[in-house]
Amino acid sequence: MMNRAELVRAIKHKKTFLCVGLDTDLTKIPEHLLDDEDPIFSFNKAIIEATEDLCVAYKPNIAFYECYGVKGWQSLQRTWQILPKECFSIADAKRGDIGNTSAMYAQAFFDEKVSGLGFDSITIAPYMGEDSVKPFLATPNKWAIVLALTSNIGSKDFQNFTNEMGEQLYEAVINKVNRWGTKENTMFVVGATRGEAFLQIRKHAPDHFLLVPGVGAQGGSLEDVCQFGMNADCGLLVNSTRGIIYASKGKDFAERAREEAFLLQQTMQAELEKAGIV
Amino acid sequence: MMNRAELVRAIKHKKTFLCVGLDTDLTKIPEHLLDDEDPIFSFNKAIIEATEDLCVAYKPNIAFYECYGVKGWQSLQRTWQILPKECFSIADAKRGDIGNTSAMYAQAFFDEKVSGLGFDSITIAPYMGEDSVKPFLATPNKWAIVLALTSNIGSKDFQNFTNEMGEQLYEAVINKVNRWGTKENTMFVVGATRGEAFLQIRKHAPDHFLLVPGVGAQGGSLEDVCQFGMNADCGLLVNSTRGIIYASKGKDFAERAREEAFLLQQTMQAELEKAGIV
Repeated sequence: MMNRAELVRAIKHKKTFLCVGLDTDLTKIPEHLLDDEDPIFSFNKAIIEATEDLCVAYKPNIAFYECYGVKGWQSLQRTWQILPKECFSIADAKRGDIGNTSAMYAQAFFDEKVSGLGFDSITIAPYMGEDSVKPFLATPNKWAIVLALTSNIGSKDFQNFTNEMGEQLYEAVINKVNRWGTKENTMFVVGATRGEAFLQIRKHAPDHFLLVPGVGAQGGSLEDVCQFGMNADCGLLVNSTRGIIYASKGKDFAERAREEAFLLQQTMQAELEKAGIV
Repeated sequence: MMNRAELVRAIKHKKTFLCVGLDTDLTKIPEHLLDDEDPIFSFNKAIIEATEDLCVAYKPNIAFYECYGVKGWQSLQRTWQILPKECFSIADAKRGDIGNTSAMYAQAFFDEKVSGLGFDSITIAPYMGEDSVKPFLATPNKWAIVLALTSNIGSKDFQNFTNEMGEQLYEAVINKVNRWGTKENTMFVVGATRGEAFLQIRKHAPDHFLLVPGVGAQGGSLEDVCQFGMNADCGLLVNSTRGIIYASKGKDFAERAREEAFLLQQTMQAELEKAGIV
């Protein structure tokens, strides 16, 4: 359980706003782990232990667990159980459906007693609008992280459609979500490849946290993200996955992951200092 | 495994285009089932046995399984195993993410050998565009059913945004998906409450099958859907959930479910006859 003030405190204390993505793929993890009873869990445990002082959030990508069915959900549940309590946890699930169904998805990722999972937050796809998002905001101290402007090629297909007021879709998503929730229980996904688009997004969400994927493998610049996207509380959770967790496929994978996370933490610390936040 | 020709044959043979939604909720199923080892599976099994000759498709709503974590996925897997092979199976999951992640979701619902699930199709939320949809089309005889114009209140929030050519978002989704797939591997979700909007949708997708939720509890009219949406191959899968599976909370729940499914089948048969399809 982590509220906004606690998240900001963690960022200032650890001098980092790094989120480590746990997109754990059996074809990419070191071979020596494949004989373990639960290789995905073994890998995640080593990565978490190697990086927990360098990041403030972990983001398991649910697809990478779901693709193994029941067994994958067991790995996800075990992973969630060892996520450090002082880190913000994100179920990267991109869910969203009509109201009664979104309420069930909220239960799946938030209600430990029923589902075995109690993440702090979940990522949401907003195509179906208000009643698809609101049920995720019904539980105190749980967060909805709504897709706004993503970093992938397909983001150009629909996210720049406009309404009669000239708002682009991603802007309208932000403005509508701001009526349904607050900066205390909503964030937005904005791809790191978007550079100056952060200026536009900050007009609509000056105080919100933004979850920023796309640094590293996808080509986004951490410096640009900070220049155009940082606010007085930092307001950024920058995710890195492949650059960290797949830095090595050898027995040194955790050590190498730590080195890559450390480099990012150092850059982030410099940015936080430059902005006078730490 | 079911291709388009087989689906059309099933509709003509069974004289129905009913899809039964399996949104199985422990708080709504008969109490006498709650002592079973897997009440969700027991309920689904009884519903399937009572309705399989009256419908051509089953659509488990994944949220209703996922909300119970590992145990829910076991119920889902057991349910998938007993879905009649001559019925089209739909994982109503509303997934969609960047390319490598969508590929994992495709594996989760299509690749029985890895995940334990081998649905014919999955529902997709298209917010993230091309690379979020295409990976679901990579497996022969597997279908992506893409959200176009939904039946919920929130559908008014974003689905009518336009591009510079004046296309509405839901129309552009259809037109773009038509470039990525064919009528043999894609369908569109169109809410039954949309009446005459089906005319517009048929301009963009004359030959596709449409998955139509919203008849019954959500207030859509089956007659309107047929009048404005049916094509020469029927081209409709009309879903009903609550009106069928929760027709009774007593020991007669399966019998009552059959009665409700039968009423819908009779209306559908009349519509198919009226259109000269059977």
